[in-house]
Amino acid sequence: MTIKNQVLEIAREARAASYILARVSTSLKNKALLRMAEELVRETRNLIAENARDIKDARRKGLSAAMIDRLTLKKATVEGIAKGLEEVAALPDPVGKVTSMWRRPNGLLVGRMRIPLGVIGIIYESRPNVTADAAALCLKSGNAVILRGGSEAIHSNRAIATILRRVLKEVGIPESAIQIIPMTDREAVHEMLQLEEYIDLIIPRGGEDLIRAVVQASRIPVIKHYKGVCHIFVDAGADTDMALTICMNAKVQRPGVCNAMETLLVHKDTAKTFLPLMAEKYREAGVVLRGCKKTRKILPDAEPAAEEDWYREYLDLILAVRVVDGLDEAIRHIEKYGSLHTEAIITRDYANAQRFLNEVQSSTVLVNASTRFSDGFELGLGAEIGISTTKLHAFGPMGVEELTTTKFIIYGDGQIRS
Amino acid sequence: MTIKNQVLEIAREARAASYILARVSTSLKNKALLRMAEELVRETRNLIAENARDIKDARRKGLSAAMIDRLTLKKATVEGIAKGLEEVAALPDPVGKVTSMWRRPNGLLVGRMRIPLGVIGIIYESRPNVTADAAALCLKSGNAVILRGGSEAIHSNRAIATILRRVLKEVGIPESAIQIIPMTDREAVHEMLQLEEYIDLIIPRGGEDLIRAVVQASRIPVIKHYKGVCHIFVDAGADTDMALTICMNAKVQRPGVCNAMETLLVHKDTAKTFLPLMAEKYREAGVVLRGCKKTRKILPDAEPAAEEDWYREYLDLILAVRVVDGLDEAIRHIEKYGSLHTEAIITRDYANAQRFLNEVQSSTVLVNASTRFSDGFELGLGAEIGISTTKLHAFGPMGVEELTTTKFIIYGDGQIRS
Repeated sequence: MTIKNQVLEIAREARAASYILARVSTSLKNKALLRMAEELVRETRNLIAENARDIKDARRKGLSAAMIDRLTLKKATVEGIAKGLEEVAALPDPVGKVTSMWRRPNGLLVGRMRIPLGVIGIIYESRPNVTADAAALCLKSGNAVILRGGSEAIHSNRAIATILRRVLKEVGIPESAIQIIPMTDREAVHEMLQLEEYIDLIIPRGGEDLIRAVVQASRIPVIKHYKGVCHIFVDAGADTDMALTICMNAKVQRPGVCNAMETLLVHKDTAKTFLPLMAEKYREAGVVLRGCKKTRKILPDAEPAAEEDWYREYLDLILAVRVVDGLDEAIRHIEKYGSLHTEAIITRDYANAQRFLNEVQSSTVLVNASTRFSDGFELGLGAEIGISTTKLHAFGPMGVEELTTTKFIIYGDGQIRS
Repeated sequence: MTIKNQVLEIAREARAASYILARVSTSLKNKALLRMAEELVRETRNLIAENARDIKDARRKGLSAAMIDRLTLKKATVEGIAKGLEEVAALPDPVGKVTSMWRRPNGLLVGRMRIPLGVIGIIYESRPNVTADAAALCLKSGNAVILRGGSEAIHSNRAIATILRRVLKEVGIPESAIQIIPMTDREAVHEMLQLEEYIDLIIPRGGEDLIRAVVQASRIPVIKHYKGVCHIFVDAGADTDMALTICMNAKVQRPGVCNAMETLLVHKDTAKTFLPLMAEKYREAGVVLRGCKKTRKILPDAEPAAEEDWYREYLDLILAVRVVDGLDEAIRHIEKYGSLHTEAIITRDYANAQRFLNEVQSSTVLVNASTRFSDGFELGLGAEIGISTTKLHAFGPMGVEELTTTKFIIYGDGQIRS
């Protein structure tokens, strides 16, 4: 069978399963999730052995230590995956929820009911835990899933998917509700992205290059974020201790993630006192600063920032710093250079806090809190399938509810249109 | 300037205007809409003169009488457009609405606030009233709009847009918030569809061919519906009078629209009594029936339905008819042949009504009411920018709320992540 036909067959099976899955009860879905958690832990030894094959291949291919680290499954990793499945089981089921209902003058009772999207394709890199996490969130939200992990994790991903599918069968859910693309050829991804009749949504998770390639090739809607160029604006008169603590946390606590701060904007009236204190803390933490001209007058040791630095997602201990005239310039900077991800203001001024919340059009906007809270779990969505920086369908962190849509349900008693 | 650069310039101006428009007050937007209504009526003579140029060209090109009818602006059409603008002014403004808010254990107050999508591109055919309707809905929801109408209506569309833009300027909103692509070249559409940085959403309105071409070429998310193959299932024991009245209304009242019924499914236990009565009514109304074998045993005069008839959107006085064993077969038929648009059940059975509402995954599902109610105005959304049969972002009729998204707003008091 050609790759094209194999992928088509997988997608068709997923579509067929999606009709059944949409009607599966919450208790049966939860039972499956809890059994999956048990079975993954019970099969830890097998998973680690399959993972070792991937690691051996990765070493042979000379992958970086960081990549191999992300690829590695340990006992604790498997326990973490299992705990994640239990947490998804504990979430409320979004399917079937009637979000609103109203009466029309002609007596029709019109409501909106949450239903699954149908079939979701996930395209991701190295981390094998995504296989279980994504499958669990799709299952909970009543969606069939087609998983296409990186070729470097193929043995691990196959081993995990085999266990998940076995449990589906055991509890009486079609095992084709969780599909894995078993071929490592790039052609398989390309074929998958053409199947708009069978797949409702594609979520790519990985670097910007992967995501751009998926968007370019896909005929299916894609929810994605390219990058997170997150800003904090320290207003005039901000609480200095709070500003220092939050700016430290946002840059240093985990610099390699998309909700870490990449650009610090400081009000000119507070820059002279705040920046030297901040720079001292950053120096101790090993953060390299790249400043605008005004910043470098205050911090002569800072490197000069080039125009392209304002667009950069460093994902590293590097920070761009700009002194601005006030809130208006800060907002204009974010509009021009931002990525619609996450921005925060540190302020004591009520009007500025409200203006920042209202006017900044990014997916997450905070007052007096770290950008690192832009995360589905931290915001209370229960779990996260990804973050969207495009405004269609979902904007910001996405939980299980964002894996559903609403249909109109209408109770009549004979109404016709005149 | 090349076409590419002209379109780019239009899109850039729209993006710049969108930042300002997102912050414009409800009262100023409403003032603009009401002034637009006044000005369109005041300029009726001018609009009809410009429209006459389009009609002259259309006659010269030999366009069908139906197309020329859709293209024609009369005094009553202009009054209808103006009334539509007044209705949009009267709708609640979705922008800024906080749809939910909750407290996290660490004290963060997290909410979701509606914001405009940004810049919306509308690609449509012949009817010049879409120019004003779409611009009004985008303005009300705080979005800049780029309008690309059919070349056959170019003079009418330009004349309408000129008036709308003049009013924007008069009330103090950037006139570039309403843009019209002034070139009739197809290249202009193609260039527009590449500008994912400047345009957030494309809504094509027109025939299936237009929509497929847009989806194929676009790098920007598209909300669309290809066709409406709407079903009514008449259950065993349904109220015969109600079934006759609703099935008549759904097929005959306006057969050329997407929410008209195209396939009638009848329970085998009711077919023998119901179908002859129904066929008699349809015969009087000039409806041609195409039936399955079982249907033709009861109605020997019906034409035989071929497999492809079950997929057809006739948009005409033709109806496919199938006798089914019961609810399960009806649902399976809709899953296989349906277009996710609108389906209705006529029943007295409580359990079947609930199962139909829960299990049919189309965007609008009705009990004991005509499929013709699948319409933004009829369902109480106030107005309609289009209907979506894809599940992403909006599913079913779309009103102004569907032209917004939500961002997360977070009130903190110094929280950092540990």
